[in-house]
Amino acid sequence: MSHNSFGHLFRVTSWGESHGPAIGGIVDGCPPGLALSEADIQPFLDRRRPGQSKFVTQRQEPDQVRLLSGVFEGMTTGTPIAFMIENQDQRSKDYGDIRDRFRPGHADLTYHLKYGVRDYRGGGRSSARETAIRVAAGAIARKVLGDAIAIRGAMVAMGPLGINRTRFEWDEVNRNPFFCPDPQAVPLWEESLAATRKAGSSLGAVIEVVAEGLPPGLGAPLYGKLDADIAAALMSINAVKGVEIGEGFSGAALDGESNADEMRMNPDGTVQFLSNHAGGILGGISTGQPVVARFAVKPTSSILTPRQSVDRFGAEVEVLTKGRHDPCVGIRAVPVGEAMLACVLADHLLRHRAQNPEAPSQARLPRN
Amino acid sequence: MSHNSFGHLFRVTSWGESHGPAIGGIVDGCPPGLALSEADIQPFLDRRRPGQSKFVTQRQEPDQVRLLSGVFEGMTTGTPIAFMIENQDQRSKDYGDIRDRFRPGHADLTYHLKYGVRDYRGGGRSSARETAIRVAAGAIARKVLGDAIAIRGAMVAMGPLGINRTRFEWDEVNRNPFFCPDPQAVPLWEESLAATRKAGSSLGAVIEVVAEGLPPGLGAPLYGKLDADIAAALMSINAVKGVEIGEGFSGAALDGESNADEMRMNPDGTVQFLSNHAGGILGGISTGQPVVARFAVKPTSSILTPRQSVDRFGAEVEVLTKGRHDPCVGIRAVPVGEAMLACVLADHLLRHRAQNPEAPSQARLPRN
Amino acid sequence: MSHNSFGHLFRVTSWGESHGPAIGGIVDGCPPGLALSEADIQPFLDRRRPGQSKFVTQRQEPDQVRLLSGVFEGMTTGTPIAFMIENQDQRSKDYGDIRDRFRPGHADLTYHLKYGVRDYRGGGRSSARETAIRVAAGAIARKVLGDAIAIRGAMVAMGPLGINRTRFEWDEVNRNPFFCPDPQAVPLWEESLAATRKAGSSLGAVIEVVAEGLPPGLGAPLYGKLDADIAAALMSINAVKGVEIGEGFSGAALDGESNADEMRMNPDGTVQFLSNHAGGILGGISTGQPVVARFAVKPTSSILTPRQSVDRFGAEVEVLTKGRHDPCVGIRAVPVGEAMLACVLADHLLRHRAQNPEAPSQARLPRN
Amino acid sequence: MSHNSFGHLFRVTSWGESHGPAIGGIVDGCPPGLALSEADIQPFLDRRRPGQSKFVTQRQEPDQVRLLSGVFEGMTTGTPIAFMIENQDQRSKDYGDIRDRFRPGHADLTYHLKYGVRDYRGGGRSSARETAIRVAAGAIARKVLGDAIAIRGAMVAMGPLGINRTRFEWDEVNRNPFFCPDPQAVPLWEESLAATRKAGSSLGAVIEVVAEGLPPGLGAPLYGKLDADIAAALMSINAVKGVEIGEGFSGAALDGESNADEMRMNPDGTVQFLSNHAGGILGGISTGQPVVARFAVKPTSSILTPRQSVDRFGAEVEVLTKGRHDPCVGIRAVPVGEAMLACVLADHLLRHRAQNPEAPSQARLPRN
Repeated sequence: MSHNSFGHLFRVTSWGESHGPAIGGIVDGCPPGLALSEADIQPFLDRRRPGQSKFVTQRQEPDQVRLLSGVFEGMTTGTPIAFMIENQDQRSKDYGDIRDRFRPGHADLTYHLKYGVRDYRGGGRSSARETAIRVAAGAIARKVLGDAIAIRGAMVAMGPLGINRTRFEWDEVNRNPFFCPDPQAVPLWEESLAATRKAGSSLGAVIEVVAEGLPPGLGAPLYGKLDADIAAALMSINAVKGVEIGEGFSGAALDGESNADEMRMNPDGTVQFLSNHAGGILGGISTGQPVVARFAVKPTSSILTPRQSVDRFGAEVEVLTKGRHDPCVGIRAVPVGEAMLACVLADHLLRHRAQNPEAPSQARLPRN
Repeated sequence: MSHNSFGHLFRVTSWGESHGPAIGGIVDGCPPGLALSEADIQPFLDRRRPGQSKFVTQRQEPDQVRLLSGVFEGMTTGTPIAFMIENQDQRSKDYGDIRDRFRPGHADLTYHLKYGVRDYRGGGRSSARETAIRVAAGAIARKVLGDAIAIRGAMVAMGPLGINRTRFEWDEVNRNPFFCPDPQAVPLWEESLAATRKAGSSLGAVIEVVAEGLPPGLGAPLYGKLDADIAAALMSINAVKGVEIGEGFSGAALDGESNADEMRMNPDGTVQFLSNHAGGILGGISTGQPVVARFAVKPTSSILTPRQSVDRFGAEVEVLTKGRHDPCVGIRAVPVGEAMLACVLADHLLRHRAQNPEAPSQARLPRN
Repeated sequence: MSHNSFGHLFRVTSWGESHGPAIGGIVDGCPPGLALSEADIQPFLDRRRPGQSKFVTQRQEPDQVRLLSGVFEGMTTGTPIAFMIENQDQRSKDYGDIRDRFRPGHADLTYHLKYGVRDYRGGGRSSARETAIRVAAGAIARKVLGDAIAIRGAMVAMGPLGINRTRFEWDEVNRNPFFCPDPQAVPLWEESLAATRKAGSSLGAVIEVVAEGLPPGLGAPLYGKLDADIAAALMSINAVKGVEIGEGFSGAALDGESNADEMRMNPDGTVQFLSNHAGGILGGISTGQPVVARFAVKPTSSILTPRQSVDRFGAEVEVLTKGRHDPCVGIRAVPVGEAMLACVLADHLLRHRAQNPEAPSQARLPRN
Repeated sequence: MSHNSFGHLFRVTSWGESHGPAIGGIVDGCPPGLALSEADIQPFLDRRRPGQSKFVTQRQEPDQVRLLSGVFEGMTTGTPIAFMIENQDQRSKDYGDIRDRFRPGHADLTYHLKYGVRDYRGGGRSSARETAIRVAAGAIARKVLGDAIAIRGAMVAMGPLGINRTRFEWDEVNRNPFFCPDPQAVPLWEESLAATRKAGSSLGAVIEVVAEGLPPGLGAPLYGKLDADIAAALMSINAVKGVEIGEGFSGAALDGESNADEMRMNPDGTVQFLSNHAGGILGGISTGQPVVARFAVKPTSSILTPRQSVDRFGAEVEVLTKGRHDPCVGIRAVPVGEAMLACVLADHLLRHRAQNPEAPSQARLPRN
């Protein structure tokens, strides 16, 4: 049992605080013989990096990853892969004002009650800074999954503003500062978030992550279900309050006929699904269709608008947070969500291989 | 790692198939010295039991639990608690028609592709019958939590029909066959589900589970978060496709001020929250407020309406399922959801005690 | 984490007390498609069964195993395999005398101090009766390992009496009541143990277990070492106080040249070891040579000779145990040791397959 | 599951290779509020450090530990404690000769067969250099155990030379380069090891580690036994081939009366044991007496004397190792063994507290 690890056969352990000297992680269980260098990880960190647009925190962190073990002559060796990112721009003084105060909606209070000690510098361990470790681990997980499996994410709602699904374009996602897949939504979101930031407020978001090219058979019938592990992985991201697979909560309003994913045969002998309400997972096990998951990110709790609160001496105070915070922390959660999905899938791919080495890599049935 | 266990210090392992001789479970890690007998478990099983109204499967199962170990002279001993429920009414012949066919939306296909062998009798391991084990384990978890912690559940939407929150009454929940908390919704749901059943169709549902009386401090900052474990536990229930905590997906549409749970002091020196958007969990750790989680259950996939599918020889066929199925599997998911929440909380209570024996049992701060 | 499970991908969980209604176990992670029935397990239980010679406990237990799940139409399905053995001959009254007294060298006292409650009927969970579960799990593990891997055990010392290694014959092992591999040692052991039993005393033993036909590569460099897992598995057997691999403690007295296992090439391109001081494991990983482990079993602590002790009220008393105990509990530890080795190897075989699917199945190098 | 972690509630994860940029570790689960700084760890590393006498490797490593997380203002925070030690003296060129050759008795071959890739620089992950991480983790474990629990180790045999138990002095251990507790054995060992080194050979050793001041109740009846975890922890140290508890293998030669640890009452109401054959553990659970474990270390396999071997192309070659190796690797295993024992005990202390918060801290019974 570990409170700072996830995964089983592809196992990630994370350490570090927002304002300590560094943050880092270990990937244990990565198979040997995979080409891996810092250049494979850095582009994913760069996507998550703060300070890239006016819509994310202005903290300046190069987020340069350094591989410390598990790779020799450009190849993974099968031993644990340790990596580290040094913290550079730790302006702890920004936090003087909230040193003794609990921000509403923030982990300040619960940490204080649980541990009795508190690293007040930018949230310590609860800071979204830790998500850089997840992104680095996700880059390694992608190596395990191989090029045939593609994992992508997009922000599909920002505050009350959604997208038009008929305009969904993956290519658009990397063209705007919101990872928004709908080109017509972008200017509206831009305007909305600019106003929110100006008002000292923040917005929530919904992120969608999709894995394509997966074999069927990943997962297990009950507690080791693929969807249960995805739910835990996404819910473990800072500020996430909801997770759904495929049709998700909307599916609860459907009847059985509408929700059924009917099947026909492809000419090549593989099963063809006529829809994907299931989000690629049935009974905890992947079908071979795209795995589709969405998660809800609450609005950033560190805001400039004063809120009623208490301090650690039990006095009633007002709190407002001056630091350099994301007005919509959901934006930077897109690469984090992708990474978590990649890690879960890499773990399940190894598990599946262990128990079911003969299972088919496609949803293929004998043709009669 | 186990595909059929959950929890760490309060650890449940489950076994058994829908149409085998029995199903059973083991609770490992239950502290010694707790009063426990079959009479503590049976009432919870009776709530989940099939055949109790026309709105659930007509399979007749007494679901009599038998304790096999871990209890001596009416007290837990600290050793593993094994229990078993015999299957009685295994009419496997009902399943002859779907022996070789894959029900759309069901685990039939993915099991076949993963394992190469398939227990076609009523879904084998994927049957909702297994949830009886969770309910029994939940009854033991409640013993660990003690009387001061109350865990309750209700169905808050059936198909497209919701409830009116202002009429929410916990007492109503046990007065109708839907675990519905809104007395005025009951006749509408009754009519709707009767029509659905008649039409050979099925409906989805949304369930809400709530834990009151918890101490603050349960959980951990990152991967061992209380909400991540709740998400996995609820998503691991058959047919669940979404999980949310507190405001959940609705919270994504809020701004930071609206979502903040402001705080004042109670006269007794404990923190008073003015709202509970967070659903009792901040930064992965319980606040001491009620923990509130909701999960979405898809409509039962075994329906009488024919759907296009394939069989295991790759032929295109039509499938309709004649067995005795729940027209709304969400109904019986209410006690299951309660049980899963109880198990997760018992586990975290033991974990918290191990690492933080001095932590306060209430959200109490020194008064200045 | 579990206190009653072992293994990771081939995971065994055990439950039950000596004098409860039954004992049982679950094997989770067994691959699907293996032929398995009760007839595959029973012969191994029969070897361990009490009451078969005057040198083991006279408790009469048929030890009939019943498979409850995970097998369908004679094949494993990939779901958890549950099995149960009913207790028949629970003469608890034999234990009346020691109800409140602590047997020196027995777990009575430590259980009492740890749990505050105690199942005084024959040791409860600490009874060697639980080892039947290990033997049943071991029979399933052998199925995972396949016929090419042979696991055998022998008792190589009984009390102060050893064997002559030059007379070691595997065939002899099943011809005498001691699992002794040296035909000339048998009559001496027989005489010695008869005298010991008559004197109301007991004897210790050393058991050797050997696995042949293993591929190289099972294990891991550091904490997940094959030998570390074997050590834990064997040390977890009741009454075991020491474990060694290959040369073991004797190797500590050797110099580097003598302990080195020199290598040449076989004509078929595989590596030929000129000796096996390493016991088939180097750096935590199997070499492909036979894995050889030995474990020391202390003399049974339940003896007829009175010993000074205390009771649970703190009074100084004398204790002697009248029950039906093994004068040399090491005898029945032979099939248990084999089973534990089989379980560890099955677990590591699955782990190895997950991470290193391309690794060779023999110690084969390219020939230049 | 992890191949590079050990422990559950006090969980250590290790990374790094002998000749990479650094090695490091993470301790997860350390309770908050313990005073901890680098100065608490460094003295233990200094005891294990190479280059301190002519009897250990001459590699020069300052082994300066750096804490990277989990400590704030001199106190543990309850979050993961990461630490790192940079490698300084990586003379990889020493290893040119064995780049393609397998040292008999070394992990070279098994790594090559398992992983297909090999870090030939000084053994990579299999080097004893990794044990520095264990020693650092052990220093943190000692903080969890507190000052009342003392953990000490000594080398009780070097090659064929043992000690005289009647001359055992803990104070002597730190006065000689062998951690030898018998002052009269020291000059003999000195002479013997000097000769061994000169001859290009090496010697094995037996180490004893002892924990005093433990409460009773640590451990569990079966698979989570304290002795099973100690066995795994000690066997996981490089070059260890045997582990025993208390009387160990000698106990197998005793009869039941001689091996029984008789009990009387102390005037203060605690149980007094008249002997400690059990090594402080009965039925997997600590008695409150000193826990005593011994482990056998094989002679270093990297020796100057040429041995027959093969290379990775399948050619038959002679191997001799020129690097800077310990002629008796057992010497530096003493602080490592202490550290592993400390880690296991810290883990079990936390586990015990979770499940049995009311258990007594001494072996105390009510006095009648």
